[in-house]
Formats: sequence, structure tokens, C-alpha cells
Amino acid sequence: MTLEELRKQIDAVDLELVELLNKRARIALEIGRYKAANQLPVTELAREKVVYSNAHERNKGPMPNSGLTQIFERVMDVMRALQRNELARIKQAEADAEAQATGTSRPETGIK
Amino acid sequence: MTLEELRKQIDAVDLELVELLNKRARIALEIGRYKAANQLPVTELAREKVVYSNAHERNKGPMPNSGLTQIFERVMDVMRALQRNELARIKQAEADAEAQATGTSRPETGIK
Repeated sequence: MTLEELRKQIDAVDLELVELLNKRARIALEIGRYKAANQLPVTELAREKVVYSNAHERNKGPMPNSGLTQIFERVMDVMRALQRNELARIKQAEADAEAQATGTSRPETGIK
Repeated sequence: MTLEELRKQIDAVDLELVELLNKRARIALEIGRYKAANQLPVTELAREKVVYSNAHERNKGPMPNSGLTQIFERVMDVMRALQRNELARIKQAEADAEAQATGTSRPETGIK
């Protein structure tokens, strides 16, 4: 197989990875909202260990477990940042709604 | 949905991620062998940029492009390490074969 053909195979895998990472992000956002509503912390080390051990258990290679851990570390870092942004957005929306309810919005512009 | 149910969904996605990352690793190893046979460098910055831009083009969210870049950076780091290990293994096997052919192996132990 040529380098070009092999790279096309990588591109096809990467397309699936992008979709799967977005699927994971949608669930992570839902978890973030659940945690916010229930006053739970965003980071839970015990759960992160479960994610790594699940990945290792399911790993049939050729990726070494250490490589999977490195990748999942990064995936969870990125997802946590996404959850934090979402929580900040929710808090801002709540603050805006409260400001509007108490009459501190600026009705002449609609901008709070 | 409960936190437990959401985490089961994450676990199912992660199982797919592990399989897909191993699929990518198998192709990367094949690319590594191709490059070794054709004296091409393991790292090619132009190709890495293509990987990022492909990911961004295909991204429909909620992941930000910056998050995808961070994850693909890590994926490529890990795959490069895998390729380098494989190249080292191939070189060692070649050296062993040559040592054996020229009689420099240690037949009394089988260790070269």
C-alpha cells in the first residue's frame, strides 16, 4: 500500500474519532449540568481511575496501556474545560435572568 | 438520566475510542514501516497540519477546534513513540540477523 493510501485510512479513522469525541463531549456536558444541579465537583479522581482501567481492560493492542492513559488524560482535560465553560454559561444565564427579574436589566436595549 | 446511566454511556464511547485508537495505531505502524523502508522521517509537520485541519473541517461540535487539536496532538505524540519503538525493533532484528549471518552471535547462549 502507498503512503497516500495509508494516510487516507488514517483520515477515515480520524473522522470517526472526531464524531466519537463530540459524542463523548455531549454526554460530558450532560454530566456537567447534572453535577451543577446536584452541587457535585467537576473533578472526581476515583472516576478517572475507572476510565483508565476500563481502557486498559479493553485494550487488545498494539497501543500500550501507557499510551492509552496519556490520550485519555488529555481527553478528560479537554472535557473538563468544556464542562467548566458550560457551567460558567449557565451561571451567567441565571445571573442575567435574576437581574432581569429584579429590574436591573436595561430594557431600552435588551442588553443586560 | 442518572449520573450512573450517563457514565455507562461514556464507558460505551470509550470502548469504541480504544478500538479506534488501536485501529489508527495499526495503520501508523504500517506507515512507520513504509517510512523506514523508504528512508523517510517519522515526523512531518506538513502532514500534522493536515490532520488538524481535517479534524476542524469535520467538527460539528460541541468540542471546540482547540480541544480537538489538543487531543490529536497527544494522539500523534503517542503514535510517534509507537512508530519509533517499532523501528528500533526492526533495526534490532536486522542487526541480530546480520550478526548471526556473520557468525558474531553467541551460539552457546543464543543471546546476541
